[in-house]
Order: sequence, then C-alpha cells, then structure tokens
Amino acid sequence: MNKQTLIETHNRIKPFIHKTPVLSSSLINEMLGTEVVFKCENFQKMGAFKMRGASNAILSLSEEERQRGVVTHSSGNFAQAVSLAAKKLGVKAYIVMPENAPQVKKDAVKTYEGEIIECESTPQAREAAANKIKEEKGASFLHPSNQDEVIYGNGTAAIELLEEYPELDVILAPVGGGGLIAGTALAANYFSTKCKVIGGEPMEVDDAYRSLISGKIETNDSFHTVADGLRTHLGDRNFPIIKKHVEKIIRVEEDEIVDAMQIIWERMKIIIEPSCAVPFAAVLKNKEEFKNKNVGIILSGGNVDVKNLPF
Amino acid sequence: MNKQTLIETHNRIKPFIHKTPVLSSSLINEMLGTEVVFKCENFQKMGAFKMRGASNAILSLSEEERQRGVVTHSSGNFAQAVSLAAKKLGVKAYIVMPENAPQVKKDAVKTYEGEIIECESTPQAREAAANKIKEEKGASFLHPSNQDEVIYGNGTAAIELLEEYPELDVILAPVGGGGLIAGTALAANYFSTKCKVIGGEPMEVDDAYRSLISGKIETNDSFHTVADGLRTHLGDRNFPIIKKHVEKIIRVEEDEIVDAMQIIWERMKIIIEPSCAVPFAAVLKNKEEFKNKNVGIILSGGNVDVKNLPF
Repeated sequence: MNKQTLIETHNRIKPFIHKTPVLSSSLINEMLGTEVVFKCENFQKMGAFKMRGASNAILSLSEEERQRGVVTHSSGNFAQAVSLAAKKLGVKAYIVMPENAPQVKKDAVKTYEGEIIECESTPQAREAAANKIKEEKGASFLHPSNQDEVIYGNGTAAIELLEEYPELDVILAPVGGGGLIAGTALAANYFSTKCKVIGGEPMEVDDAYRSLISGKIETNDSFHTVADGLRTHLGDRNFPIIKKHVEKIIRVEEDEIVDAMQIIWERMKIIIEPSCAVPFAAVLKNKEEFKNKNVGIILSGGNVDVKNLPF
Repeated sequence: MNKQTLIETHNRIKPFIHKTPVLSSSLINEMLGTEVVFKCENFQKMGAFKMRGASNAILSLSEEERQRGVVTHSSGNFAQAVSLAAKKLGVKAYIVMPENAPQVKKDAVKTYEGEIIECESTPQAREAAANKIKEEKGASFLHPSNQDEVIYGNGTAAIELLEEYPELDVILAPVGGGGLIAGTALAANYFSTKCKVIGGEPMEVDDAYRSLISGKIETNDSFHTVADGLRTHLGDRNFPIIKKHVEKIIRVEEDEIVDAMQIIWERMKIIIEPSCAVPFAAVLKNKEEFKNKNVGIILSGGNVDVKNLPF
C-alpha cells in the first residue's frame, strides 16, 4: 500500500462515482467557534460512500471473475452499492439478506437489479448462504469493510476533501466495520502532512474504542444504537491501519447522536442517516478541543426511512 | 420596471444572500424522461428565497427610513427573512405575529433578533398591530409578496438559474402570495428569449388559477393545504405581472404534493418544505407535457418542522 495505489484507485472509480460537494454552515460554525466542512457522501450515487469501495472492488476483478458475478451479505448500504456498481459494469450481483430485513431495503436492492438470496437472520446463516453462492456460481465475495480494495475505494472521499481543503487539521469519520475510517486514515497520511484522523463511535457499540486500548479486535455484546450502519466490528485488514494511523476514537451517547442529526437536518437542510451524525456529535461534545481548527467531517450517507425518524 | 432594475437589484443584494446551488438527480430525470434542474433556495440564508426580497426591500430604504426600523406581519419565512436581513443591516425589525403562532416560528424570529409583537389571529388584528407600529415608530411596512422591491428581489433566484442554465425552456415556481412567481416571470422575460414560466398551486387554495380565468384577484374560502406557505392570495402589485408573463398555473392535489415532497427528500437527500414540492408535483402530474424539455424548478425553502412531517 502506498500513495500510488490510492491515486490509481481514485482514477479507476472516478467515472462511476459522483465527486460529492463539500458544504458548510455559518450557523454551525458560530455554534462551534470553528470552521467545519462536510463532505457530503449522502449525495453519492445510491446515497452513501459505500459506492466508492464497491466500485473499486468490482473494477479490480479480472474479466473472467466479473463474468462469474459477485456476492456479498449485507442488509444495508453495501448491498445497494454492490448492486448498483455491478449493474453499471454488467456484472451479476448476488445479495444475501436476512429474510426479516425491512422491505424498503429489499426494494432498494431490487431497484439496482441485485438478486436477493434470503437466509435466516444469524451471522452463520449469512456466511453459509454466501459461501454456497461462491461455490455454485464461482462468484467473488466482496466484504463491506474488511477488504483492501473496499478500504482504498472508501479513502477517495477524503482524497477529494483534502484536494479541496488542503489545510484541514483533522478529518472525522464514523467507525462501524472500519472500512471508512481506515481508508480515510490512509488518505490523510498520504495526501496531507498534518491532517489527523479521528473516529466517532456510539458508546453503545464501542468495540473499536476498546480494540485500540486492548490492541486486539473486540466485539459488542449488544447493538442498541440508532446508528444502524455502525452495528458491526473491525476486521483483520482494516484494524492494523486504524491502529497505525487513527489518532483516537471519541464515543458519544445515543441522545447526542440524535441531537447532532437533527441539527444537520435543520441547519443544513440535508438528509443524513444517524450513523453519519456520530462524528459531528463528537465535535459538538468536545468543542474546546476543536476550537479554531480546520475540521472536516465525512457525512457517510443519507439512506434513512423518512417515515420512521429518531426525532 | 426594466431589465436594468433587475440587474441593479441583483447587484444590490448579492453581498447579503447566498448564490444557491443548482442540483439535479439522474433518478428523477429517468422517472420523468426529461432534464430537470432544481434551484435550491432551501439552502438560502434563513432557509428560503424570502431572504432575497426582504434584503432588497430594506436596502432600498433611505438611511433615515432604516433608522426608524421596519415592520411586517408574517408567521412564516418572511418574518425570519426580514429579521435576519434587518439584523445584518443594523435595522430594527418589528414582527407582528398571531399569539397562537407555533413556538418554533417565534423562536426562529428571536434567533435573528426580530422583536415580536403578538396580536389576535385575524387579518384585521394583524393589520391594526402593524399600523400601530408604523405610526408609533415611523417604521416602514414591508409586504411579504405584494411590494415591488420584494418581487424584484425574489426574481434574482431565476436570474441566477438562467445564468447557469440559459437553455431552459420553462421554469416552475409555487404560487402563494404571488411574489415569487411574479419575480420569476420578470426574470425569465428579461433574461431569456424562450423560457416560459409556469406556476404550481394546490387545488385546495387555487385562487391564482381562478384569478387568471376571471381577470381579477380571487380569494380562498378555506386553507386546507399541507403547503402552508401558499395559504394566501395575490395582490395588486404582482397580479398584473402574473397576468402578463405567466404562461399558466397547474393545480395539484394534496396527496400529489406529499408524494412529490417525499420523492425529493428520498432521491435528492435534501430537505424541502411542502410548498416547494408543489411545482415538482405539477411536473410529475404532466409528464408528457414536459418530456424532452429543459425544466427548471425553484425549490423555494426548507423550513419544516422535522418532528411533524406529512408522510
């Protein structure tokens, strides 16, 4: 892994993704006493940064591999990202989803012509179903967060942000499976001389925070967080990057996440999902620490059921 | 009124407003079979196009008039716009509001340091209270929609849109008090050789539609529309402009407004208020008419209570 890999990744996926806008709000800057810019991956194709990693992973396959299709297990944004990226590249996408996944998520995958394979709602059943597709179809398995091509692809959001705002002192991103924060940390390391990367994580699923302390990958016993995109844990591909390049992880409470989400909705008039309110909540909680800094926040996605909001 | 007046207006208010972005959605274009661009006045300062007219009205006052302050009666976006524009210009703003106005609206005005004068919730009481301020303080009365400076100021949104997209065949805007559609129609008339202007209006408050048929200003008997910004009628300053320059008005049902609003929220990940879903609903309802046209829609504002949504 070096800077050249990230540059190649960015060039490879450019035709398949949006260069998303960077927005700011004078009211939010006044509220914080600092300058914050938001990289709006909620405006990315299919509504989340996951399009970057999924596109890169499929584009990195050989022609022969592409012909056999790709498979993933996800009920969230990665399922949509793989379906859409595969559709654009003429590749068949098999999406393993728990049978009790919300209809709205199944419909989103179908919109992008992904083929849904239903399974029981356990990690074991998901893996077994994905393995079966791998064996039967010869499809390549794509992991939502713990795969190098996915991590590099995700890192391109921070590359674009640093190209536009080279003076950033810090970039914050949410920590779920670790694929976004790892890619962001690599980008900051190679494309800035001073920009640090800080993760935001819900207190309720603070596995990454604990992993950085213990030095090994920790898991969560429960998943009671409104930040539905972050109910997962780190992996062996992204954890070493996080250990090496992420400054620290700030934990926030559930009500702080919901408040932060509402502030962004009301002040910026943009729709973000709860997961991407987490790093903004971390800044709100630690105003002094970020005062007079140039702060960038990656708003990771905007796929939320507008009929079922947490506020 | 001529093109020069509009150019001067635009230059006058530029330092006090945002040049708002113009967004589009490939999914919405596919859905419609046409190219639609959205002028995002929901991202305007205080969250609505009203900032343009209010700024121009205050900037057009003499120094002496400014020292005596301004007064308006509004419980909506114009109250916030006058408060913020006045604050930025060091002018005192008196805002007459019905005593039963929602607390969230009162709070918004207070944020921008407008002084609220409460009155009974009747048109007569509002006017009496505003007149009292005019007499006692010598304040200049600003009308939300039926005042030349407000109309010209509102027209600058369409000027910016046409500068960026000179090939537009049609611009649609919502019709409430008539100040936005009249300004938009003037801008299209002077800044394009071919662009027509069409209004969108809720069937439930179709006074403007009926006014264009009868040739005189009609009113509404009831105001049962979700589009709370459009519960008003035309005035003698804007109606002649609308009669002369607006191609037609398309009426839409309440469920069509709510559906259109939800599509924009979900597909574009931006927050718009119900009123500005009305012209988009008009396009959705008349797909054939707009097919293969270059369509612009003015998204008038994004001030909505996110805890009380119509879907």
